[in-house]
Amino acid sequence: MKVILDGMGGDHAPSEIVKGAAEASHIIGEHEICIVGDERRIEDELSRHIHNRASISILHAPDIITADDSPAKSIRRKPDSSMVKGLEALRDGKGDVFLSAGNSGALMSGSVMILGRIPNIDRPAIGSPYPILEGGVALLIDAGANAECKPRNLLQFGIMGSIYAETVFGKEHPRVGLVNMGTEKGKGSPLLKESFELIDGAAGSLGLRFVGNVEARDVPVGICDVIVCDGFVGNVILKMTEGVGLSIMHLIRKKFTEGVIATIGATLLMGKLGELKKTFDYTEYGGAPVLGVTKPVVKMHGSSDSKAVLNGIIKSLAFADGHAIDAITENVAKVAELGEAEGGEAESDGGEAGADNNNGQ
Amino acid sequence: MKVILDGMGGDHAPSEIVKGAAEASHIIGEHEICIVGDERRIEDELSRHIHNRASISILHAPDIITADDSPAKSIRRKPDSSMVKGLEALRDGKGDVFLSAGNSGALMSGSVMILGRIPNIDRPAIGSPYPILEGGVALLIDAGANAECKPRNLLQFGIMGSIYAETVFGKEHPRVGLVNMGTEKGKGSPLLKESFELIDGAAGSLGLRFVGNVEARDVPVGICDVIVCDGFVGNVILKMTEGVGLSIMHLIRKKFTEGVIATIGATLLMGKLGELKKTFDYTEYGGAPVLGVTKPVVKMHGSSDSKAVLNGIIKSLAFADGHAIDAITENVAKVAELGEAEGGEAESDGGEAGADNNNGQ
Repeated sequence: MKVILDGMGGDHAPSEIVKGAAEASHIIGEHEICIVGDERRIEDELSRHIHNRASISILHAPDIITADDSPAKSIRRKPDSSMVKGLEALRDGKGDVFLSAGNSGALMSGSVMILGRIPNIDRPAIGSPYPILEGGVALLIDAGANAECKPRNLLQFGIMGSIYAETVFGKEHPRVGLVNMGTEKGKGSPLLKESFELIDGAAGSLGLRFVGNVEARDVPVGICDVIVCDGFVGNVILKMTEGVGLSIMHLIRKKFTEGVIATIGATLLMGKLGELKKTFDYTEYGGAPVLGVTKPVVKMHGSSDSKAVLNGIIKSLAFADGHAIDAITENVAKVAELGEAEGGEAESDGGEAGADNNNGQ
Repeated sequence: MKVILDGMGGDHAPSEIVKGAAEASHIIGEHEICIVGDERRIEDELSRHIHNRASISILHAPDIITADDSPAKSIRRKPDSSMVKGLEALRDGKGDVFLSAGNSGALMSGSVMILGRIPNIDRPAIGSPYPILEGGVALLIDAGANAECKPRNLLQFGIMGSIYAETVFGKEHPRVGLVNMGTEKGKGSPLLKESFELIDGAAGSLGLRFVGNVEARDVPVGICDVIVCDGFVGNVILKMTEGVGLSIMHLIRKKFTEGVIATIGATLLMGKLGELKKTFDYTEYGGAPVLGVTKPVVKMHGSSDSKAVLNGIIKSLAFADGHAIDAITENVAKVAELGEAEGGEAESDGGEAGADNNNGQ
């Protein structure tokens, strides 16, 4: 496999991106990395780290899409940017997966504009690895690309998420749950009720293991492997996990250093606290796949350091082989056929997916 | 003040409810409690606890609305239930506030049907006390009564929440935040953008301290005193706080008892862990007000024990005086006038608020 890496996207680009690639070059075996960006700057950064040059190539791209650039416009106006060049290289078969820590909205728009949507997919989505505290990882979809969704979109998220969890995370028969206000069948808004019916009805013929409605309370303990929700709710789930986690850790540190005895206890436990922190560390789980476009694209966190880039590269290899995309294409077509056979709605709701309401991971 | 208490609502009714009332009777001074429910059962429970009989009266109601009853229907079909009798007593001036740990949806429907909405309020909402880990408490509104909301609803939630936080929590000039996917002005769905504009535009003339969009990540650390969102998102925020909190506590307990040294440390820290748990304890903060109806109604958690009931009674006294409701009535009328002056939309979207998409706290 050849990983195409956006060398210029992210808060710490190109230094940390290139450093991560250099580290990865020693352990990816026969796989390759193509770093896209300003050739001189990339070469300069590469020279600072021991790397396996045989595994690394550079694709020159003089321009950069910044975090402040307008998503859809920047793709059109910056044809020489590392993001556009990288996506074009992926489209043209010069690599197997594209990774970027750059502007999320632009990556989403660019993926749709340059690679195109998988037939019958109305809205591509971002899947985010969601670490389960007790161990393991789930996939949350949508993580913020589509603030408002129709039932059909949520069904497609479930299909795409299930396939990704199976092929990339290696989960057997992943459990797909729909985030709702209660677990009973008739819960939530009319839209949620309709979504439940649609997913429940399609699950059988697709081999989808739909476990029904799940409550937000049960998401952190791993009630399901694929967490289906609209992008607004997905954003709230991810941000609440981070916010509650950080404030508890902060409070623990504070409480545990109040008084002499507690401080002695805290000192003894510091190592354990470090392990806990690691559990929250999203960089451990690789990046977030853009699902619903014709080729594998992965969004890495904007603040990715070299370790996150290294992990992102390694974890992306299982996505790069294209099996997930083939399976998504097949299953979504099957749903479309079912819909037509039943005279159901088949029209696309158009619009560039996530062009404007995107949100950084 | 006279607190009307639903003696039969909740998982532990009537025993824990009556026990809580008996405990409260010793400390409420000149205030009174009227327990609504089956007279014999209430008397029987009361006889088990030392109580100040001069502060407690009983209003007989032979029927019970259960957790499984359909919200709107049960109000019509069970006129002799403790919930209906209690709300009618409040309506008729036989008390100043109604507290119930019973069926949330029925309490919401019953409040609207029996007490009526405040003029110009389209959708009453449930405000939930949200404990800030570092100390203090915010009010989240809506906590689950309205899964889908229009911008006008969110503005009204902001007004009601701000007044409640000021009059009941005693916050001076509370900060009102709108939960969104990012803090910038143009973030989120069209509905959220419109809501931002509406609240921002009305804030000046209402003296509302609108701090703009807030991210879910910053909610647990107390970025604002009033957390405005639709009921679906509100439910996700509350449940995520609970879920993440519980799983971290569980993990800490597990990690901290791995190995001898950590176990010694953990033993030294047990007291501190207990304090932490108390911070999460929602029962400390009293119940959740039903806001937007003409009299003060408070929903207590379904699993309320006597301590929660005791706290619920004490905290409800500041709501019982009616000042919050007067201020809400006044401010919402002001917004309606502004809307008419600007030729804005003034029609109600009708329907019984929260009759069907309610959700237990």
